[in-house]
Amino acid sequence: MTLLSQARALDIRFPTSLELDGSDAVNVNPDYSAAYLELHLSSGEIGHSLVFTGGRGNEIMVSAIRSVAALLDGHDMEALLADMREASRVVVHDSQMRWLGPEKGVSHMAAGAVVNALWDIKARRAQLPLWEYLARMSSEELVGVVDFTHIQNALTEAEALDILRRGQAGKEERIAHLRSNGYPAYTTTPGWLGYSDEKMLRLSHEAVADGFGLIKLKVGGSLEDDMRRVALVRDALGPDFPVAIDANQKWEVGEAIEWVKALSPWNPYWIEEATSTDDILGHADIRAAISPVRVATGEAVQSRIVFKQLLQVQAIDVMQIDSTRVAGVNENIANLLLAAKFGVIVCPHAGGVGLCELVRHFSFFDYAVVSTHSEGRFIEYVDHLHEHFVDPVVVEGGKYVAPRVPGISAEMHADSLTQWEYPGGPEWTRLLGSP
Amino acid sequence: MTLLSQARALDIRFPTSLELDGSDAVNVNPDYSAAYLELHLSSGEIGHSLVFTGGRGNEIMVSAIRSVAALLDGHDMEALLADMREASRVVVHDSQMRWLGPEKGVSHMAAGAVVNALWDIKARRAQLPLWEYLARMSSEELVGVVDFTHIQNALTEAEALDILRRGQAGKEERIAHLRSNGYPAYTTTPGWLGYSDEKMLRLSHEAVADGFGLIKLKVGGSLEDDMRRVALVRDALGPDFPVAIDANQKWEVGEAIEWVKALSPWNPYWIEEATSTDDILGHADIRAAISPVRVATGEAVQSRIVFKQLLQVQAIDVMQIDSTRVAGVNENIANLLLAAKFGVIVCPHAGGVGLCELVRHFSFFDYAVVSTHSEGRFIEYVDHLHEHFVDPVVVEGGKYVAPRVPGISAEMHADSLTQWEYPGGPEWTRLLGSP
Repeated sequence: MTLLSQARALDIRFPTSLELDGSDAVNVNPDYSAAYLELHLSSGEIGHSLVFTGGRGNEIMVSAIRSVAALLDGHDMEALLADMREASRVVVHDSQMRWLGPEKGVSHMAAGAVVNALWDIKARRAQLPLWEYLARMSSEELVGVVDFTHIQNALTEAEALDILRRGQAGKEERIAHLRSNGYPAYTTTPGWLGYSDEKMLRLSHEAVADGFGLIKLKVGGSLEDDMRRVALVRDALGPDFPVAIDANQKWEVGEAIEWVKALSPWNPYWIEEATSTDDILGHADIRAAISPVRVATGEAVQSRIVFKQLLQVQAIDVMQIDSTRVAGVNENIANLLLAAKFGVIVCPHAGGVGLCELVRHFSFFDYAVVSTHSEGRFIEYVDHLHEHFVDPVVVEGGKYVAPRVPGISAEMHADSLTQWEYPGGPEWTRLLGSP
Repeated sequence: MTLLSQARALDIRFPTSLELDGSDAVNVNPDYSAAYLELHLSSGEIGHSLVFTGGRGNEIMVSAIRSVAALLDGHDMEALLADMREASRVVVHDSQMRWLGPEKGVSHMAAGAVVNALWDIKARRAQLPLWEYLARMSSEELVGVVDFTHIQNALTEAEALDILRRGQAGKEERIAHLRSNGYPAYTTTPGWLGYSDEKMLRLSHEAVADGFGLIKLKVGGSLEDDMRRVALVRDALGPDFPVAIDANQKWEVGEAIEWVKALSPWNPYWIEEATSTDDILGHADIRAAISPVRVATGEAVQSRIVFKQLLQVQAIDVMQIDSTRVAGVNENIANLLLAAKFGVIVCPHAGGVGLCELVRHFSFFDYAVVSTHSEGRFIEYVDHLHEHFVDPVVVEGGKYVAPRVPGISAEMHADSLTQWEYPGGPEWTRLLGSP
């Protein structure tokens, strides 16, 4: 019987707060960090995953991942790998631990880390990158991994099966297309609040020249600054180039409506996180008031249950799934199916550390068998910290290149893990000074 | 300058899963546990608080409380104690740590533990039990501790001030009334799913004889069993005695509607947690379908932002605040003000370990200066584990007796902390066997 032999969880942090990369109206000085997991099986196999965090508190995620992984102790891992809905149930619905969420925040992200590490093992066994492994599963197998708890009034198992069965037609052509052409990307690199106007404009021009289909600017610090910055970029890129804006949950509902209306002369493509991502009704009110500006959110949406409601009240035009916010691959399949059912586009959140590496698999899978197109869709791209990954993101001509390495792409270089372990790794010892 | 000198966080668990106390349709075998905090100041003062959990995972809460408390390092504690809105901001809105929530789950409850420990110190300094300390604050001071972020489209600071100013009239009489008469309680003791019909009926009769104004039965395991159990209790107690039912989030929306309709011939007083507590729209649909049965929820509602929406869509009749789910006293004042604005009754969740001790302060305060009445309102009461507290709950004639000991009543006996620390305390060493 294959057993869990070790859950090695590491606190890996990068001192990005020393630059102004990653600064926005709310996250003023993040140290992009990963609560990193290696799930060692008695077979000798290792599943890799991570949860992204903003620095402080990464140690809480590490503690949570260790505790959630311990729920697998004594389980027949072959049985769980063969029944990923059951594997998810073991870590998401533990009767004692569920009080910590349920299905939200630290404990839910920890469950996601464990689930994703199991998918890494499954895809490695099949010698396929995760997206292709998922795309080659049957419709029945895919529905069989989804937890439909508390979403059945919006998406039944039968409806999900219909969506996936329709997606089988032309699947091989789409897989071939992805391998040849990749998937469109957008970039947030020009738009951090800490950048000067000159740097913002230079990076915006570079982004267009590099082939990105959309750029995004952070807003919400000062309306005066935002109007100047958005106007500068709009003037520089012309009337039609998609320029999205992102407030990172800074505003009250009424404030969001006023602020976006003030910026609407420059035709923003979407407004992202206009208010608390937990405010489903607030997002609906905002969307109704600022149309035709699209409403986007999702990087902090805690579960499929909140996405369901955002869709039920027509609060969003763009679903921004995140690879490490929810309970892993299983729940993100549910999210993609909900988006397909309600006809909204999916433009995944990425950046941070490792999020680009992981989340591309979901868009590639989505194109292959769920939405079956990529029109108006982009995966976020930020050019940070990819050098630490064994299978780093490659973006060429503004497109994510199809991953080919087996697994979920979360594995980091052993040297990166050693150097950047917090607080004892050599790089941190150097930065923090000797004790 | 007063500084934080130590944040002592302990993992305290009680083996309640060995009995069937506390069993419901979802929480099948909880070990009632406390992530317990002593906040030691350089002045020698100690603030006490705790977060309730279901057992496994309590170590994650302990880790989170340590990390959140460390955010106070170097702060002038006198300045924070004098400005509790700022104290809350420091622990709730830390720019790096907020990614872990924001404002939900483990990290949010940890923030609540730290905030509550500070209130414990404030009330002890004033030599008043928390409820009376709060009741004697001015309306302006009370509004000054509330974080109105992301609720201002439902409750403005000015509206909150109006509510509190109206509550000043007759305050002294109501405080005197509370001291003489206490506050109505209801009991869940008869209704656990694991109890035999005989035990349920015996305890139900005892509850009525003891003066409780309402009893609650757990439902959601099997409809056949629920119909039998609810009918037995209804027959035993007569047509008018309030009997509430509680599904602990077991059902899908449609299932909840069918199940409650099947039980409605026996006139349930409210249905509690009919579906996911995160499903605001689902609760609204259920309420519309099962009227006149009241809809109650709240013990797992993550923040004021979710309560706001439950009220905006008229999804609940009964707000069930919990003392350790949200970010402490400050956020529960926001919740009470939201309930007052929208005209719903507040019947706090309690039970577990320490929840009765802490939450009574909120209902007493609510009666004194917010809602100004207790009609149709009850504080949940379960007769478990009170012996571990220095200022235990006293219920007489079905009423919570007014607390008189200074502070928030979270302090546990030193011997209880020693005996039940997990896993190394003597009681656990005995239960778990020697290693």
